[in-house]
Amino acid sequence: MKLLRHGPVGAEKPGALDAAGQARDLSLLIPDFTPEWMAPTKLEALKAIDLTRLPLVPKGTRLGAPVAGVRQFVAIGLNYRKHAAESGLEIPKEPVVFTKALTSLAGPDDDIEMPAGSEATDWEIELGFVIGTQARKVAVADALKHVAGYCLANDVSERDWQIKRNGQWGKGKSFDGFGPIGPWLVTADELPDPQGIPLELAVNGETKQRSNTADMIFPVAEIVSYLSQFMTLLPGDVVITGTPEGVGLGIKPLPQFLKRGDVMTLSAGPLGMQRQRVI
Amino acid sequence: MKLLRHGPVGAEKPGALDAAGQARDLSLLIPDFTPEWMAPTKLEALKAIDLTRLPLVPKGTRLGAPVAGVRQFVAIGLNYRKHAAESGLEIPKEPVVFTKALTSLAGPDDDIEMPAGSEATDWEIELGFVIGTQARKVAVADALKHVAGYCLANDVSERDWQIKRNGQWGKGKSFDGFGPIGPWLVTADELPDPQGIPLELAVNGETKQRSNTADMIFPVAEIVSYLSQFMTLLPGDVVITGTPEGVGLGIKPLPQFLKRGDVMTLSAGPLGMQRQRVI
Repeated sequence: MKLLRHGPVGAEKPGALDAAGQARDLSLLIPDFTPEWMAPTKLEALKAIDLTRLPLVPKGTRLGAPVAGVRQFVAIGLNYRKHAAESGLEIPKEPVVFTKALTSLAGPDDDIEMPAGSEATDWEIELGFVIGTQARKVAVADALKHVAGYCLANDVSERDWQIKRNGQWGKGKSFDGFGPIGPWLVTADELPDPQGIPLELAVNGETKQRSNTADMIFPVAEIVSYLSQFMTLLPGDVVITGTPEGVGLGIKPLPQFLKRGDVMTLSAGPLGMQRQRVI
Repeated sequence: MKLLRHGPVGAEKPGALDAAGQARDLSLLIPDFTPEWMAPTKLEALKAIDLTRLPLVPKGTRLGAPVAGVRQFVAIGLNYRKHAAESGLEIPKEPVVFTKALTSLAGPDDDIEMPAGSEATDWEIELGFVIGTQARKVAVADALKHVAGYCLANDVSERDWQIKRNGQWGKGKSFDGFGPIGPWLVTADELPDPQGIPLELAVNGETKQRSNTADMIFPVAEIVSYLSQFMTLLPGDVVITGTPEGVGLGIKPLPQFLKRGDVMTLSAGPLGMQRQRVI
Protein backbone atom coordinates (compact mmCIF):
# COMPACT_ATOMS: atom_id res chain seq x y z
CA MET A 1 0.00 0.00 0.00
CA LYS A 2 0.92 3.62 -0.31
CA LEU A 3 0.10 5.35 2.96
CA LEU A 4 -0.13 9.10 3.30
CA ARG A 5 -1.30 11.84 5.62
CA HIS A 6 -3.35 14.75 4.33
CA GLY A 7 -4.47 18.05 5.74
CA PRO A 8 -3.05 21.18 7.35
CA VAL A 9 0.19 21.13 9.35
CA GLY A 10 -0.44 19.53 12.71
CA ALA A 11 -3.91 18.32 11.77
CA GLU A 12 -3.08 15.64 9.20
CA LYS A 13 -5.37 12.65 8.74
CA PRO A 14 -4.42 9.21 7.47
CA GLY A 15 -5.08 8.15 3.91
CA ALA A 16 -3.90 5.79 1.21
CA LEU A 17 -3.68 5.62 -2.55
CA ASP A 18 -6.28 3.42 -4.21
CA ALA A 19 -5.53 1.20 -7.22
CA ALA A 20 -6.18 4.13 -9.53
CA GLY A 21 -3.64 6.25 -7.68
CA GLN A 22 -6.25 8.45 -6.02
CA ALA A 23 -5.83 9.46 -2.39
CA ARG A 24 -8.58 8.13 -0.11
CA ASP A 25 -9.35 9.36 3.39
CA LEU A 26 -8.90 6.69 6.08
CA SER A 27 -9.69 8.95 9.02
CA LEU A 28 -13.17 7.49 9.61
CA LEU A 29 -11.51 4.17 10.40
CA ILE A 30 -8.10 5.06 11.81
CA PRO A 31 -6.98 7.96 14.03
CA ASP A 32 -3.51 8.39 12.52
CA PHE A 33 -0.45 6.48 11.31
CA THR A 34 1.24 6.50 14.70
CA PRO A 35 4.14 4.12 15.37
CA GLU A 36 1.93 1.17 16.41
CA TRP A 37 0.41 1.25 12.91
CA MET A 38 3.81 0.46 11.44
CA ALA A 39 3.65 -3.10 12.83
CA PRO A 40 3.46 -5.77 10.09
CA THR A 41 0.18 -7.19 11.41
CA LYS A 42 -1.46 -3.75 11.41
CA LEU A 43 -0.19 -2.94 7.92
CA GLU A 44 -1.47 -6.31 6.71
CA ALA A 45 -4.86 -5.64 8.28
CA LEU A 46 -5.14 -2.35 6.38
CA LYS A 47 -5.39 -4.39 3.19
CA ALA A 48 -8.82 -5.57 4.31
CA ILE A 49 -10.13 -2.07 3.65
CA ASP A 50 -11.80 -1.43 0.30
CA LEU A 51 -10.34 2.00 -0.33
CA THR A 52 -12.75 2.74 -3.16
CA ARG A 53 -15.59 2.89 -0.60
CA LEU A 54 -13.92 5.71 1.28
CA PRO A 55 -14.05 9.44 0.44
CA LEU A 56 -11.57 10.86 -2.01
CA VAL A 57 -9.09 13.34 -0.62
CA PRO A 58 -9.75 16.53 -2.61
CA LYS A 59 -7.06 17.23 -5.21
CA GLY A 60 -4.64 19.87 -4.07
CA THR A 61 -4.92 18.91 -0.40
CA ARG A 62 -1.60 19.34 1.36
CA LEU A 63 0.24 16.14 2.29
CA GLY A 64 2.23 15.78 5.49
CA ALA A 65 4.96 13.35 6.46
CA PRO A 66 3.39 9.89 6.01
CA VAL A 67 4.06 8.76 9.57
CA ALA A 68 2.97 10.46 12.82
CA GLY A 69 4.48 10.49 16.27
CA VAL A 70 8.00 9.86 15.04
CA ARG A 71 10.42 9.48 17.94
CA GLN A 72 13.81 9.25 16.22
CA PHE A 73 14.95 10.73 12.90
CA VAL A 74 18.27 9.17 12.00
CA ALA A 75 20.39 9.93 8.96
CA ILE A 76 23.29 8.22 7.23
CA GLY A 77 26.07 10.30 5.70
CA LEU A 78 28.44 9.66 2.78
CA ASN A 79 26.67 6.51 1.61
CA TYR A 80 27.48 6.93 -2.10
CA ARG A 81 31.10 6.77 -3.28
CA LYS A 82 30.90 9.72 -5.66
CA HIS A 83 29.25 11.90 -3.01
CA ALA A 84 32.03 11.15 -0.53
CA ALA A 85 34.51 12.10 -3.26
CA GLU A 86 32.77 15.37 -4.17
CA SER A 87 32.67 16.25 -0.47
CA GLY A 88 36.42 15.73 -0.30
CA LEU A 89 35.93 13.00 2.30
CA GLU A 90 37.06 9.40 2.50
CA ILE A 91 34.71 6.57 1.70
CA PRO A 92 33.59 5.46 5.15
CA LYS A 93 34.37 1.97 6.39
CA GLU A 94 31.24 2.04 8.53
CA PRO A 95 28.06 4.08 8.12
CA VAL A 96 28.34 7.69 9.27
CA VAL A 97 25.36 8.37 11.53
CA PHE A 98 23.80 11.61 12.68
CA THR A 99 20.32 12.75 13.68
CA LYS A 100 17.89 15.43 12.59
CA ALA A 101 15.54 17.24 14.98
CA LEU A 102 11.96 15.93 14.96
CA THR A 103 10.66 19.34 13.91
CA SER A 104 12.69 19.12 10.71
CA LEU A 105 10.12 16.55 9.51
CA ALA A 106 7.79 18.11 6.95
CA GLY A 107 5.41 17.30 4.15
CA PRO A 108 6.78 16.52 0.69
CA ASP A 109 5.73 19.81 -0.88
CA ASP A 110 6.05 22.20 2.04
CA ASP A 111 8.04 25.37 1.51
CA ILE A 112 11.60 25.30 2.79
CA GLU A 113 12.37 28.33 4.93
CA MET A 114 16.01 29.33 4.62
CA PRO A 115 17.58 30.19 7.96
CA ALA A 116 18.17 33.91 8.44
CA GLY A 117 21.48 34.87 6.87
CA SER A 118 22.08 31.45 5.34
CA GLU A 119 24.34 31.41 2.30
CA ALA A 120 24.79 27.66 2.13
CA THR A 121 21.46 25.86 2.13
CA ASP A 122 21.77 22.70 0.07
CA TRP A 123 19.71 19.80 -1.26
CA GLU A 124 20.15 16.05 -0.70
CA ILE A 125 17.75 13.56 -2.26
CA GLU A 126 17.62 10.31 -0.31
CA LEU A 127 15.81 7.05 0.16
CA GLY A 128 14.07 6.95 3.52
CA PHE A 129 12.56 4.09 5.45
CA VAL A 130 10.37 3.69 8.52
CA ILE A 131 10.90 1.08 11.22
CA GLY A 132 7.98 -1.30 11.78
CA THR A 133 9.14 -3.34 14.74
CA GLN A 134 11.72 -2.67 17.43
CA ALA A 135 15.22 -3.58 16.22
CA ARG A 136 18.03 -4.38 18.66
CA LYS A 137 21.18 -6.17 17.53
CA VAL A 138 19.58 -7.70 14.45
CA ALA A 139 21.51 -9.60 11.80
CA VAL A 140 21.68 -8.27 8.25
CA ALA A 141 19.66 -11.27 7.06
CA ASP A 142 16.80 -10.38 9.41
CA ALA A 143 17.03 -6.62 9.09
CA LEU A 144 14.47 -5.91 6.37
CA LYS A 145 11.77 -7.61 8.44
CA HIS A 146 11.98 -4.58 10.73
CA VAL A 147 11.22 -2.10 7.92
CA ALA A 148 7.59 -1.02 7.53
CA GLY A 149 8.11 0.81 4.28
CA TYR A 150 10.02 3.28 2.17
CA CYS A 151 9.67 6.93 1.25
CA LEU A 152 11.40 9.72 -0.59
CA ALA A 153 13.30 12.28 1.51
CA ASN A 154 15.17 15.53 1.10
CA ASP A 155 17.90 15.91 3.71
CA VAL A 156 18.04 19.70 3.43
CA SER A 157 21.37 20.88 4.86
CA GLU A 158 22.75 24.24 5.90
CA ARG A 159 26.44 23.67 5.19
CA ASP A 160 27.84 26.46 7.36
CA TRP A 161 25.95 25.18 10.41
CA GLN A 162 26.80 21.60 9.45
CA ILE A 163 30.52 22.05 8.95
CA LYS A 164 31.79 25.34 10.35
CA ARG A 165 30.02 25.50 13.71
CA ASN A 166 32.11 23.18 15.91
CA GLY A 167 31.46 19.70 14.64
CA GLN A 168 28.62 17.19 14.61
CA TRP A 169 26.49 17.55 11.52
CA GLY A 170 23.08 17.63 13.18
CA LYS A 171 23.14 21.41 13.56
CA GLY A 172 22.93 22.05 9.83
CA LYS A 173 20.28 19.37 9.35
CA SER A 174 17.78 20.22 12.07
CA PHE A 175 16.10 23.49 11.11
CA ASP A 176 12.30 23.33 11.04
CA GLY A 177 11.17 21.80 7.76
CA PHE A 178 14.62 20.56 6.71
CA GLY A 179 13.39 16.97 6.43
CA PRO A 180 10.50 16.63 3.99
CA ILE A 181 9.45 13.00 3.60
CA GLY A 182 6.80 11.49 1.39
CA PRO A 183 4.49 11.96 -0.51
CA TRP A 184 3.68 8.48 0.74
CA LEU A 185 5.10 5.46 2.48
CA VAL A 186 5.32 2.43 0.19
CA THR A 187 4.89 -0.58 2.44
CA ALA A 188 7.75 -3.03 2.33
CA ASP A 189 5.65 -5.85 0.86
CA GLU A 190 5.37 -3.77 -2.33
CA LEU A 191 9.10 -3.12 -2.47
CA PRO A 192 10.98 -6.24 -1.43
CA ASP A 193 14.28 -4.87 -2.76
CA PRO A 194 14.92 -1.20 -1.89
CA GLN A 195 18.23 -1.17 -3.76
CA GLY A 196 17.00 -0.39 -7.24
CA ILE A 197 15.16 2.91 -6.86
CA PRO A 198 16.05 5.75 -9.23
CA LEU A 199 16.65 9.10 -7.52
CA GLU A 200 16.55 12.41 -9.33
CA LEU A 201 16.60 15.95 -8.00
CA ALA A 202 16.38 19.17 -10.00
CA VAL A 203 16.62 22.82 -9.00
CA ASN A 204 14.51 25.14 -11.15
CA GLY A 205 14.13 22.29 -13.64
CA GLU A 206 17.86 21.66 -14.00
CA THR A 207 18.90 18.17 -12.94
CA LYS A 208 21.47 18.22 -10.14
CA GLN A 209 21.39 14.69 -8.79
CA ARG A 210 20.64 11.50 -10.72
CA SER A 211 21.50 8.15 -9.22
CA ASN A 212 20.02 4.89 -8.02
CA THR A 213 19.86 3.31 -4.59
CA ALA A 214 21.71 0.37 -6.15
CA ASP A 215 24.83 2.53 -5.73
CA MET A 216 24.59 2.81 -1.95
CA ILE A 217 27.73 1.72 -0.11
CA PHE A 218 25.70 0.36 2.80
CA PRO A 219 22.32 -0.96 1.68
CA VAL A 220 19.23 -0.68 3.85
CA ALA A 221 19.63 -4.12 5.45
CA GLU A 222 23.17 -3.29 6.53
CA ILE A 223 22.10 0.11 7.88
CA VAL A 224 19.33 -1.39 10.02
CA SER A 225 21.65 -4.07 11.35
CA TYR A 226 24.47 -1.58 12.01
CA LEU A 227 22.31 0.99 13.82
CA SER A 228 20.73 -1.74 15.91
CA GLN A 229 24.15 -2.70 17.32
CA PHE A 230 24.48 0.54 19.31
CA MET A 231 20.92 1.82 19.61
CA THR A 232 17.42 0.44 19.71
CA LEU A 233 15.34 1.37 16.68
CA LEU A 234 11.71 1.96 17.59
CA PRO A 235 8.55 1.57 15.51
CA GLY A 236 7.94 4.76 13.57
CA ASP A 237 11.60 5.79 13.56
CA VAL A 238 12.54 7.40 10.25
CA VAL A 239 15.95 6.64 8.77
CA ILE A 240 17.29 8.36 5.68
CA THR A 241 20.09 6.65 3.89
CA GLY A 242 22.48 9.24 2.45
CA THR A 243 22.56 11.23 -0.74
CA PRO A 244 24.29 10.52 -4.04
CA GLU A 245 26.60 12.97 -5.82
CA GLY A 246 25.39 16.26 -7.19
CA VAL A 247 24.81 18.38 -4.10
CA GLY A 248 25.49 22.10 -4.27
CA LEU A 249 28.50 21.80 -1.99
CA GLY A 250 30.19 19.57 -4.56
CA ILE A 251 29.76 21.82 -7.60
CA LYS A 252 33.10 22.92 -9.10
CA PRO A 253 34.80 25.33 -9.27
CA LEU A 254 32.49 26.93 -6.70
CA PRO A 255 29.69 25.47 -4.59
CA GLN A 256 26.23 26.55 -5.62
CA PHE A 257 23.50 26.87 -3.00
CA LEU A 258 19.80 27.56 -2.85
CA LYS A 259 18.36 31.05 -3.19
CA ARG A 260 14.95 32.26 -2.16
CA GLY A 261 12.46 31.51 -4.91
CA ASP A 262 14.25 28.38 -6.10
CA VAL A 263 12.14 25.27 -6.60
CA MET A 264 13.43 21.78 -5.89
CA THR A 265 11.74 18.83 -7.57
CA LEU A 266 12.54 15.30 -6.50
CA SER A 267 11.46 11.96 -7.88
CA ALA A 268 12.07 8.37 -6.89
CA GLY A 269 10.11 5.98 -9.08
CA PRO A 270 7.42 4.22 -7.01
CA LEU A 271 8.13 6.47 -4.04
CA GLY A 272 6.65 9.43 -5.88
CA MET A 273 7.65 13.05 -6.21
CA GLN A 274 8.31 16.08 -4.03
CA ARG A 275 8.32 19.77 -4.86
CA GLN A 276 9.61 22.44 -2.48
CA ARG A 277 9.82 26.16 -2.92
CA VAL A 278 12.61 27.94 -1.05
CA ILE A 279 11.34 30.93 0.91
CA MET B 1 9.26 20.35 43.80
CA LYS B 2 11.29 17.23 43.26
CA LEU B 3 9.46 15.05 40.76
CA LEU B 4 10.28 11.40 40.25
CA ARG B 5 8.98 8.25 38.66
CA HIS B 6 8.93 4.96 40.56
CA GLY B 7 8.32 1.36 39.66
CA PRO B 8 9.58 -1.30 37.26
CA VAL B 9 11.09 -0.44 33.87
CA GLY B 10 8.33 0.58 31.51
CA ALA B 11 5.70 0.72 34.25
CA GLU B 12 6.87 3.76 36.20
CA LYS B 13 4.36 5.91 38.08
CA PRO B 14 4.73 9.58 38.98
CA GLY B 15 5.73 10.70 42.42
CA ALA B 16 7.34 13.55 44.30
CA LEU B 17 9.42 14.11 47.40
CA ASP B 18 7.56 15.56 50.36
CA ALA B 19 9.03 18.17 52.72
CA ALA B 20 10.64 15.39 54.75
CA GLY B 21 12.36 14.01 51.64
CA GLN B 22 10.11 10.95 51.43
CA ALA B 23 8.84 9.81 48.03
CA ARG B 24 5.06 10.00 47.67
CA ASP B 25 2.99 8.27 45.00
CA LEU B 26 1.12 10.69 42.72
CA SER B 27 -0.35 8.04 40.45
CA LEU B 28 -3.86 8.28 41.89
CA LEU B 29 -4.01 11.88 40.67
CA ILE B 30 -1.77 11.97 37.59
CA PRO B 31 -1.15 9.37 34.88
CA ASP B 32 2.53 10.17 34.28
CA PHE B 33 5.00 13.05 33.88
CA THR B 34 4.56 13.25 30.13
CA PRO B 35 5.77 16.34 28.24
CA GLU B 36 2.58 18.35 28.79
CA TRP B 37 3.21 18.11 32.56
CA MET B 38 6.43 20.05 32.07
CA ALA B 39 4.48 23.25 31.31
CA PRO B 40 4.92 25.96 33.97
CA THR B 41 1.19 26.16 34.69
CA LYS B 42 0.97 22.41 35.26
CA LEU B 43 4.06 22.35 37.47
CA GLU B 44 2.63 25.24 39.46
CA ALA B 45 -0.68 23.40 39.86
CA LEU B 46 1.12 20.39 41.32
CA LYS B 47 1.97 22.52 44.33
CA ALA B 48 -1.71 22.47 45.27
CA ILE B 49 -1.33 18.82 46.22
CA ASP B 50 -0.69 17.99 49.86
CA LEU B 51 1.87 15.26 49.33
CA THR B 52 1.66 14.06 52.93
CA ARG B 53 -1.88 12.83 52.23
CA LEU B 54 -0.66 10.50 49.49
CA PRO B 55 0.82 7.02 49.95
CA LEU B 56 4.53 6.66 50.59
CA VAL B 57 6.53 4.96 47.88
CA PRO B 58 8.04 1.93 49.64
CA LYS B 59 11.74 2.32 50.36
CA GLY B 60 13.91 0.47 47.89
CA THR B 61 11.45 0.96 45.01
CA ARG B 62 13.30 1.43 41.73
CA LEU B 63 13.29 4.94 40.28
CA GLY B 64 13.07 5.60 36.55
CA ALA B 65 13.97 8.66 34.53
CA PRO B 66 11.89 11.49 36.03
CA VAL B 67 10.19 12.44 32.76
CA ALA B 68 8.14 10.19 30.44
CA GLY B 69 7.52 10.33 26.71
CA VAL B 70 10.78 12.13 25.97
CA ARG B 71 11.07 12.97 22.28
CA GLN B 72 14.59 14.40 21.98
CA PHE B 73 17.68 13.66 24.05
CA VAL B 74 20.31 16.25 23.22
CA ALA B 75 23.82 16.47 24.61
CA ILE B 76 26.50 19.14 24.71
CA GLY B 77 30.15 18.18 24.36
CA LEU B 78 33.34 19.79 25.65
CA ASN B 79 31.59 22.30 27.87
CA TYR B 80 34.29 22.51 30.54
CA ARG B 81 37.73 23.89 29.65
CA LYS B 82 39.75 21.26 31.49
CA HIS B 83 37.72 18.44 29.93
CA ALA B 84 38.39 19.78 26.44
CA ALA B 85 42.07 19.92 27.35
CA GLU B 86 42.20 16.36 28.75
CA SER B 87 40.45 15.15 25.58
CA GLY B 88 43.16 16.81 23.52
CA LEU B 89 40.57 19.00 21.82
CA GLU B 90 40.27 22.74 21.40
CA ILE B 91 37.93 24.75 23.57
CA PRO B 92 34.88 25.12 21.34
CA LYS B 93 33.79 28.57 20.20
CA GLU B 94 30.20 27.34 20.02
CA PRO B 95 28.53 24.45 21.85
CA VAL B 96 29.27 21.02 20.40
CA VAL B 97 25.93 19.24 19.98
CA PHE B 98 25.09 15.58 19.53
CA THR B 99 22.18 13.34 20.40
CA LYS B 100 21.64 10.15 22.36
CA ALA B 101 19.08 7.51 21.40
CA LEU B 102 15.86 7.62 23.41
CA THR B 103 16.44 4.09 24.67
CA SER B 104 19.65 5.21 26.33
CA LEU B 105 17.46 6.95 28.93
CA ALA B 106 17.42 5.00 32.18
CA GLY B 107 16.75 5.30 35.86
CA PRO B 108 19.41 6.75 38.17
CA ASP B 109 20.42 3.45 39.75
CA ASP B 110 19.87 1.04 36.88
CA ASP B 111 22.72 -1.30 36.01
CA ILE B 112 24.86 -0.24 33.04
CA GLU B 113 25.28 -3.07 30.56
CA MET B 114 28.64 -2.85 28.82
CA PRO B 115 28.40 -3.48 25.10
CA ALA B 116 29.77 -6.86 24.05
CA GLY B 117 33.51 -6.61 23.56
CA SER B 118 33.74 -3.04 24.84
CA GLU B 119 37.11 -2.01 26.23
CA ALA B 120 36.39 1.70 26.49
CA THR B 121 33.19 2.35 28.40
CA ASP B 122 33.54 5.63 30.27
CA TRP B 123 31.70 7.86 32.74
CA GLU B 124 30.59 11.50 32.37
CA ILE B 125 28.73 13.23 35.18
CA GLU B 126 26.61 16.09 33.88
CA LEU B 127 23.92 18.58 34.73
CA GLY B 128 20.74 17.81 32.78
CA PHE B 129 17.64 19.88 32.22
CA VAL B 130 14.17 19.29 30.81
CA ILE B 131 12.37 21.67 28.49
CA GLY B 132 9.01 22.95 29.75
CA THR B 133 7.76 24.99 26.82
CA GLN B 134 8.61 24.92 23.13
CA ALA B 135 11.72 26.97 22.40
CA ARG B 136 12.43 28.38 18.96
CA LYS B 137 14.96 31.17 18.42
CA VAL B 138 14.83 32.39 22.00
CA ALA B 139 17.15 35.03 23.39
CA VAL B 140 19.56 34.15 26.19
CA ALA B 141 17.65 36.46 28.53
CA ASP B 142 14.42 34.52 27.96
CA ALA B 143 15.95 31.06 27.77
CA LEU B 144 15.57 29.84 31.35
CA LYS B 145 11.80 30.43 31.15
CA HIS B 146 11.71 27.40 28.84
CA VAL B 147 13.34 25.09 31.39
CA ALA B 148 11.01 22.96 33.52
CA GLY B 149 13.69 21.69 35.84
CA TYR B 150 17.09 20.15 36.40
CA CYS B 151 18.43 16.68 37.03
CA LEU B 152 21.64 14.75 37.44
CA ALA B 153 22.82 12.72 34.42
CA ASN B 154 25.54 10.26 33.51
CA ASP B 155 26.45 10.50 29.82
CA VAL B 156 27.89 7.00 29.64
CA SER B 157 30.14 6.79 26.58
CA GLU B 158 31.75 3.93 24.68
CA ARG B 159 34.87 5.69 23.39
CA ASP B 160 35.71 3.29 20.58
CA TRP B 161 32.21 3.63 19.11
CA GLN B 162 32.28 7.37 19.79
CA ILE B 163 35.61 8.16 18.22
CA LYS B 164 36.93 5.32 16.08
CA ARG B 165 33.81 4.31 14.14
CA ASN B 166 33.61 6.95 11.43
CA GLY B 167 32.69 10.16 13.14
CA GLN B 168 29.66 11.66 14.86
CA TRP B 169 29.69 10.92 18.57
CA GLY B 170 26.13 9.64 18.91
CA LYS B 171 27.16 6.05 18.23
CA GLY B 172 29.14 5.72 21.46
CA LYS B 173 26.46 7.47 23.49
CA SER B 174 23.32 5.63 22.43
CA PHE B 175 23.51 2.12 23.83
CA ASP B 176 20.49 1.09 25.88
CA GLY B 177 20.81 2.48 29.38
CA PHE B 178 23.73 4.83 28.59
CA GLY B 179 21.77 7.86 29.78
CA PRO B 180 20.66 7.50 33.41
CA ILE B 181 18.91 10.66 34.62
CA GLY B 182 17.48 11.46 38.01
CA PRO B 183 16.80 10.48 40.79
CA TRP B 184 14.42 13.41 40.48
CA LEU B 185 13.71 16.55 38.54
CA VAL B 186 14.14 19.68 40.63
CA THR B 187 11.68 22.19 39.22
CA ALA B 188 13.26 25.41 38.03
CA ASP B 189 11.48 27.56 40.64
CA GLU B 190 13.57 25.79 43.30
CA LEU B 191 16.80 26.35 41.40
CA PRO B 192 16.78 29.79 39.82
CA ASP B 193 20.52 29.62 39.08
CA PRO B 194 21.70 26.28 37.69
CA GLN B 195 25.33 27.43 37.52
CA GLY B 196 26.40 26.65 41.06
CA ILE B 197 25.78 22.92 41.40
CA PRO B 198 28.60 20.71 42.67
CA LEU B 199 29.23 17.58 40.61
CA GLU B 200 31.12 14.58 41.88
CA LEU B 201 31.57 11.13 40.42
CA ALA B 202 33.45 8.20 41.94
CA VAL B 203 34.24 4.73 40.63
CA ASN B 204 34.40 2.08 43.35
CA GLY B 205 34.52 4.88 45.90
CA GLU B 206 37.48 6.68 44.32
CA THR B 207 36.66 10.20 43.18
CA LYS B 208 37.26 10.69 39.47
CA GLN B 209 35.38 13.89 38.70
CA ARG B 210 34.81 16.85 41.01
CA SER B 211 33.67 20.15 39.60
CA ASN B 212 30.85 22.66 39.65
CA THR B 213 28.45 23.79 36.96
CA ALA B 214 29.81 27.29 37.60
CA ASP B 215 32.73 26.17 35.41
CA MET B 216 30.64 25.49 32.30
CA ILE B 217 31.84 27.33 29.20
CA PHE B 218 28.28 27.73 27.92
CA PRO B 219 25.78 28.03 30.77
CA VAL B 220 22.27 26.60 30.52
CA ALA B 221 20.69 29.83 29.26
CA GLU B 222 23.19 30.04 26.40
CA ILE B 223 22.68 26.38 25.53
CA VAL B 224 18.91 26.75 25.31
CA SER B 225 19.22 29.88 23.20
CA TYR B 226 21.88 28.34 20.95
CA LEU B 227 20.03 25.07 20.32
CA SER B 228 16.84 26.98 19.61
CA GLN B 229 18.52 28.80 16.72
CA PHE B 230 18.73 25.67 14.57
CA MET B 231 16.14 23.33 16.06
CA THR B 232 12.89 23.54 17.94
CA LEU B 233 13.11 22.29 21.50
CA LEU B 234 9.94 20.52 22.58
CA PRO B 235 8.40 20.10 26.03
CA GLY B 236 9.93 17.06 27.70
CA ASP B 237 13.16 17.23 25.69
CA VAL B 238 16.13 16.30 27.85
CA VAL B 239 19.37 18.22 27.39
CA ILE B 240 22.58 17.28 29.16
CA THR B 241 25.21 19.93 29.36
CA GLY B 242 28.65 18.38 29.09
CA THR B 243 31.01 16.80 31.57
CA PRO B 244 33.91 18.29 33.52
CA GLU B 245 37.43 16.87 33.61
CA GLY B 246 38.23 13.50 35.08
CA VAL B 247 36.79 11.03 32.58
CA GLY B 248 38.56 7.73 32.02
CA LEU B 249 39.68 8.76 28.55
CA GLY B 250 41.66 11.62 30.04
CA ILE B 251 43.62 9.64 32.62
CA LYS B 252 47.40 9.76 32.04
CA PRO B 253 49.57 8.03 31.08
CA LEU B 254 46.90 5.56 29.96
CA PRO B 255 43.13 5.87 29.80
CA GLN B 256 41.25 3.86 32.40
CA PHE B 257 37.83 2.49 31.57
CA LEU B 258 35.02 0.67 33.32
CA LYS B 259 35.11 -3.04 34.06
CA ARG B 260 32.27 -5.34 34.85
CA GLY B 261 31.50 -5.15 38.56
CA ASP B 262 32.57 -1.52 38.92
CA VAL B 263 30.19 0.80 40.72
CA MET B 264 29.75 4.44 39.77
CA THR B 265 28.39 6.85 42.35
CA LEU B 266 27.36 10.35 41.35
CA SER B 267 26.20 13.30 43.39
CA ALA B 268 25.04 16.79 42.54
CA GLY B 269 23.89 18.65 45.65
CA PRO B 270 20.14 19.29 45.47
CA LEU B 271 19.85 17.11 42.36
CA GLY B 272 20.54 14.02 44.44
CA MET B 273 22.63 10.92 43.85
CA GLN B 274 22.95 8.07 41.38
CA ARG B 275 24.57 4.66 41.75
CA GLN B 276 25.15 2.33 38.82
CA ARG B 277 26.70 -1.10 38.75
CA VAL B 278 28.48 -2.07 35.53
CA ILE B 279 27.39 -5.48 34.29
